[in-house]
Amino acid sequence: MVNIVEKVIKEVEPLEDAVLIEGLPGIGHVGRIVAEHIIHEFNGEKVLELYCDDFPPQVLVNEDGTVEFMNNSIYIIKEPIPIIVVTGNTQALTPMGQYQTSKRLTELGIKYGAKVVYTIGGFGIGNLKENPAVYVAATSKELANKIKGHGAVFRGDGGGILGAAGLMLTFSKLNGIDGACIMGETPGYLIDPKSAGRVLEVLSKILGIEINMDEIEKRAKEMEMFLEKIKSFEKSQEQKQAMPRDDDLRYIG
Amino acid sequence: MVNIVEKVIKEVEPLEDAVLIEGLPGIGHVGRIVAEHIIHEFNGEKVLELYCDDFPPQVLVNEDGTVEFMNNSIYIIKEPIPIIVVTGNTQALTPMGQYQTSKRLTELGIKYGAKVVYTIGGFGIGNLKENPAVYVAATSKELANKIKGHGAVFRGDGGGILGAAGLMLTFSKLNGIDGACIMGETPGYLIDPKSAGRVLEVLSKILGIEINMDEIEKRAKEMEMFLEKIKSFEKSQEQKQAMPRDDDLRYIG
Amino acid sequence: MVNIVEKVIKEVEPLEDAVLIEGLPGIGHVGRIVAEHIIHEFNGEKVLELYCDDFPPQVLVNEDGTVEFMNNSIYIIKEPIPIIVVTGNTQALTPMGQYQTSKRLTELGIKYGAKVVYTIGGFGIGNLKENPAVYVAATSKELANKIKGHGAVFRGDGGGILGAAGLMLTFSKLNGIDGACIMGETPGYLIDPKSAGRVLEVLSKILGIEINMDEIEKRAKEMEMFLEKIKSFEKSQEQKQAMPRDDDLRYIG
Amino acid sequence: MVNIVEKVIKEVEPLEDAVLIEGLPGIGHVGRIVAEHIIHEFNGEKVLELYCDDFPPQVLVNEDGTVEFMNNSIYIIKEPIPIIVVTGNTQALTPMGQYQTSKRLTELGIKYGAKVVYTIGGFGIGNLKENPAVYVAATSKELANKIKGHGAVFRGDGGGILGAAGLMLTFSKLNGIDGACIMGETPGYLIDPKSAGRVLEVLSKILGIEINMDEIEKRAKEMEMFLEKIKSFEKSQEQKQAMPRDDDLRYIG
Repeated sequence: MVNIVEKVIKEVEPLEDAVLIEGLPGIGHVGRIVAEHIIHEFNGEKVLELYCDDFPPQVLVNEDGTVEFMNNSIYIIKEPIPIIVVTGNTQALTPMGQYQTSKRLTELGIKYGAKVVYTIGGFGIGNLKENPAVYVAATSKELANKIKGHGAVFRGDGGGILGAAGLMLTFSKLNGIDGACIMGETPGYLIDPKSAGRVLEVLSKILGIEINMDEIEKRAKEMEMFLEKIKSFEKSQEQKQAMPRDDDLRYIG
Repeated sequence: MVNIVEKVIKEVEPLEDAVLIEGLPGIGHVGRIVAEHIIHEFNGEKVLELYCDDFPPQVLVNEDGTVEFMNNSIYIIKEPIPIIVVTGNTQALTPMGQYQTSKRLTELGIKYGAKVVYTIGGFGIGNLKENPAVYVAATSKELANKIKGHGAVFRGDGGGILGAAGLMLTFSKLNGIDGACIMGETPGYLIDPKSAGRVLEVLSKILGIEINMDEIEKRAKEMEMFLEKIKSFEKSQEQKQAMPRDDDLRYIG
Repeated sequence: MVNIVEKVIKEVEPLEDAVLIEGLPGIGHVGRIVAEHIIHEFNGEKVLELYCDDFPPQVLVNEDGTVEFMNNSIYIIKEPIPIIVVTGNTQALTPMGQYQTSKRLTELGIKYGAKVVYTIGGFGIGNLKENPAVYVAATSKELANKIKGHGAVFRGDGGGILGAAGLMLTFSKLNGIDGACIMGETPGYLIDPKSAGRVLEVLSKILGIEINMDEIEKRAKEMEMFLEKIKSFEKSQEQKQAMPRDDDLRYIG
Repeated sequence: MVNIVEKVIKEVEPLEDAVLIEGLPGIGHVGRIVAEHIIHEFNGEKVLELYCDDFPPQVLVNEDGTVEFMNNSIYIIKEPIPIIVVTGNTQALTPMGQYQTSKRLTELGIKYGAKVVYTIGGFGIGNLKENPAVYVAATSKELANKIKGHGAVFRGDGGGILGAAGLMLTFSKLNGIDGACIMGETPGYLIDPKSAGRVLEVLSKILGIEINMDEIEKRAKEMEMFLEKIKSFEKSQEQKQAMPRDDDLRYIG
């Protein structure tokens, strides 16, 4: 049994018929980018911090001399539709901690009014794709098909969904509500705003709301420019190696 | 202390003088194949799902877009004799989780009417055998001898029986009933319906019931044909290497 | 928090002014051999079995088709002096399990009448010694010196005493009684009845009782004869390699 | 949930407006040296020992035949200002143990009168520096800036502070008081009284008290002389290798 401490930041009434969106750190940080973008675009308000003794036993150091605590947070959004967002800077370290934080976060989300849960994750494929796909897997055939209708596809790999993105679906079902995991294809070795953008496009259709994508697109472009630079640098290195070097020429003639 | 969640699927009266059969994933998946075969042949009815926060922290993805939760289940069978079957898609990850789920599953089995426990496992030997043996180890000399009379033999290796197949015997004894582990010899590196078939033959004699083996025999034949193909492929590869190749000949003459 | 199950084998009155001797599996199995020898020589009676969900998650298989459960046991001896013996076939796997079983075993020992605790261990030195020393480390300077007077010496390595042999001293002190760990020098890579015999000699002086050593000396001689055989075999192998072999000679002349 | 045992050594009234200083074993043992120096210089009195079943499962052996238990201790100092010192010979082994001991030690410190927490640590940089810096990271911008004014600098590495030195800040904040971690730059591969001395200089300014540094400076000098010896030994070895050796000369001429 892990110990969970909940610090209420603001007392609020439960939302009506709300959607819960989970985006914690994971592959490509797709979930966390999506969650933070939604909080930013719709002025999410932090209502609760959750601390767990199975989080990494540390604090992080900021440049201004302050420390950042390891925790998960719950934000609420009222407009354009009621949304509860779960995000944070970490996930629990052991299976038991992952189960118990996922259980508690789902229960808290339901307490705040959630009637459906969308968990967001990255689906690591090991390489960069021009058009990353968006996958879905849900607790019911109906919800899976509905989200497929909005541009997501089914995974045929028979694999799993690890951590909160998977387990919050288990606890949604055990608490009587449906849930789906929406996964953006991502290399896995870099933080991927482009993949997050694709997930946000699908999410926008599912929720029936417009989501301003300027910030995400800007970050995605910065990432692509950075990758372009690396590629052209690598290319120039290859050309150098293909050409004879001065000190090679000495031995020719 | 791990957290166990029990979801009752159907309320039922305890069976009278029932046999508990445990078959969870393990070596060669012998136990799980046996359990699922018995559930299928005798129309087992699921009465309970058990979730544990020491199971792998994930959900599995199905091809139809739905997810499968990690859990263990209890099925009951009334005819030809009262049987309680424990199966599932996982076992707990840590010793503590294995002890506590085994304890709870045994207690639940006894609550459903079990008077004796048969756990099923694979006994990994590292290679394929034409006639895999069936081993037995029991909580009493009498039960061990009785099952020996039905074609099982004793292991002389002084080793152990890991996981639920071993620990449910510990908790049978601590709860005042006897139990035995029936193990099918298996290579260990493949899912083995043939070994499961041998265990089912012994089990059929112990329980005094006929068990239709068509499905298991079909799966065992498919496995053998698959292994044959691999063998003949490997043989053809060896022959190729033994013969001079075109590009070798160039240097001969 | 680990789960501990206690199965009372026989209800008994607490002993008066008893000595607790702990000998669980460890380096060279010195502790376990000492504990089992004392139980055997003085007709120890088993009064309690302790099961813990941090023990190895398995049962052991006996040659006669029965299984052996992983547990620790408490035996009581009334003559020549009141002794409580703690032994078993395993120790807990994690620090938490080791602390909690050591705590419980010490408390149970005190409940059965223990006024002082002697834990027995092996002190691994990596090689075989003609005359293995016996070391002592105690919860008080007085007890350490008293045992030194009976032939044990102090360790100067600044190292630790791991597992129950160490932690039962911690819990003796926290429960207000003294304790000492008596360690027999042992190679560490074999089960060592000779080292156990030396510890028994010291223990016999501490307790002021005679302990028949025939069985231990027989086992120690068997071990030495076995080691002699290995040595002479190795020597003969070396000689063979030094001498020209038949098939070497073929190429000489 | 780990089990924590608290042994009260002396009943005392809470101090008024006290400072808590934590120095447990860690990188370069900077924290522990600082804590022990303060206890020694201001005649700290031990009031409580804390035992935890997530500490290393062992006892340590002293040269005089006694054993040392793994624990953390709380000392109180009344003059020149009220100080509560937390030190010990170990930290918990798992994240859960680290969280729960840090939580309990912070709560105990507050119970004894702490209004602010200073945790002391080493900041490992992998090499020896003539003038090791002192870093600070705090739970508030104000406290960080105040300590900066006393000679500490901010870290710009974006890294973390592990163990009690980090987590006691988390639990300070959750309990409504501020805290700061003061870190001495240290190679990381040796026990470093010099770095501890620099931290003590900053701490003396923060607390507004004089701290006699003779003992620390003596130990720092011993360390430097030891390092000098190693250096000159290494230098002499290099010279030997650069010079022709007798047996080399034989082949020259």
